[in-house]
Amino acid sequence: MASKLVADCIFCRIIKGEIPSVKLLETATTFSFLDIGPLSEGHALVIPKYHAEKMHQLPDEFLADAMPVAKKIAAALGAENYNILQNNGKLAHQEVGHVHFHVIPKPNEQDGLTIGWPAKKADTEKLKELASKLKL
Amino acid sequence: MASKLVADCIFCRIIKGEIPSVKLLETATTFSFLDIGPLSEGHALVIPKYHAEKMHQLPDEFLADAMPVAKKIAAALGAENYNILQNNGKLAHQEVGHVHFHVIPKPNEQDGLTIGWPAKKADTEKLKELASKLKL
Ligand SMILES: [Zn+2]
Ligand SMILES: [Zn+2]
Repeated sequence: MASKLVADCIFCRIIKGEIPSVKLLETATTFSFLDIGPLSEGHALVIPKYHAEKMHQLPDEFLADAMPVAKKIAAALGAENYNILQNNGKLAHQEVGHVHFHVIPKPNEQDGLTIGWPAKKADTEKLKELASKLKL
Repeated sequence: MASKLVADCIFCRIIKGEIPSVKLLETATTFSFLDIGPLSEGHALVIPKYHAEKMHQLPDEFLADAMPVAKKIAAALGAENYNILQNNGKLAHQEVGHVHFHVIPKPNEQDGLTIGWPAKKADTEKLKELASKLKL
């Protein structure tokens, strides 16, 4: 499937080379570069060459390469601890409206992503009920 | 490539059906189910059918399906806001030593993932220097 890029998106413009970036890797369906506002040294972004705001709007073809590329970057960085993160929607901390996967080394407590984990204990019957309703 | 599962891993045992789970989707290389300690309703896990602790240890074949499957789950949940998260290493909040991708709906400020974002402003020259050293 052909790439789909738009004129008024900063990430589409980075892919097209209209805005400079510190490029890492490019594949047929992805482009990756170092984040200019890093949470830690080596913080990178992997973006599909297809303009969509949220992940569920992307064709599968533009998603298949994302984790293999993130893996190559993580391996090259040599990070022992790191997070892969992709945010959808403002409430979920998305800041640019073009799907992007963060590769964020976690070298120590202060740098990198910090995570809050408000876990609940689930009722298995309610989980089964939810699963039965999902069209998958 | 064939699956690689081990005897003493809770997620390998879930894939083998030795431990029950509320299953969502299964593909040749992935298994997904609802998290029993959810951060929000619909919190799901996608795991490769290959035992590896961290993402950079996985063969690409077991990574290609992860995001297409996460996408299907996100779409079925109908979440407007959601995060995809994969943690590597204890410092990065990994709790089970088998690679897993979280799909976490973010319905409101309280539920779902909470994120701390200690961004720095990068020096472009230093980013270029780092990129030039990476074997990609
Ligand atoms: Zn775009
Ligand atoms: Zn395992």
